[in-house]
Amino acid sequence: MQRIPILKMGPFLLVTIQVDLHDRLVMALQDDLTNMVSKTGARGVLIDISSLDMVDSFIGRMLGGIAAVTRLMDAQTVVVGMQPAVAITMVELGLDLPGVLTALNVERGMELLRSRLGLVREMAHDIDTKA
Amino acid sequence: MQRIPILKMGPFLLVTIQVDLHDRLVMALQDDLTNMVSKTGARGVLIDISSLDMVDSFIGRMLGGIAAVTRLMDAQTVVVGMQPAVAITMVELGLDLPGVLTALNVERGMELLRSRLGLVREMAHDIDTKA
Repeated sequence: MQRIPILKMGPFLLVTIQVDLHDRLVMALQDDLTNMVSKTGARGVLIDISSLDMVDSFIGRMLGGIAAVTRLMDAQTVVVGMQPAVAITMVELGLDLPGVLTALNVERGMELLRSRLGLVREMAHDIDTKA
Repeated sequence: MQRIPILKMGPFLLVTIQVDLHDRLVMALQDDLTNMVSKTGARGVLIDISSLDMVDSFIGRMLGGIAAVTRLMDAQTVVVGMQPAVAITMVELGLDLPGVLTALNVERGMELLRSRLGLVREMAHDIDTKA
């Protein structure tokens, strides 16, 4: 069965969603994520949805569910990379993402997590200035 | 048409391959990657293949092609996350990845790129020790 890979990046986990989500895949992702959080002690989860052309109520619930579960495990979830058109449609449909933080892109998401969690921020700074 | 998202992380670009690759998708990825390298001035490209159950000669050529193109643009490509079974099969089939660097996972890949490019390494250190 297909699984969505979870990448560990320092204190955070990164998931990019590229495939159509269905119930079993979402359940597997939630399982894998909680296992990874428990195994790695990750403090934050970044979910990139930049390749999603639309976020319906199913995906919205899925994101909310993942955020709720990881929060219980002391990890904060941030959804990043939402396309402008997706955001517009969500508002038009009256959908929001309760309990889910959002950020423009992965870098901003990491910054948000770092400031929320009180982690050192030199990292982003280092990269920006010296790269 | 489906596209594989490219995430910018500091001086590097990250691509996770989750879907079956075919000619047009590979061409689109190569296009998008070179555009992103040119636009962002990225120094390295990380390609995560942890969800690939097999790497055949087509994918091998694709990875080699991307590495060659990005090298001309002064960015180094590292393939990360290869499954053990994939590595074994590749050796059995006599496939290798000429001109492509590999690393165990994204974190190791970033470390490799950083040391190759002479970038500051405090970032990884920071995360490991303070997170």
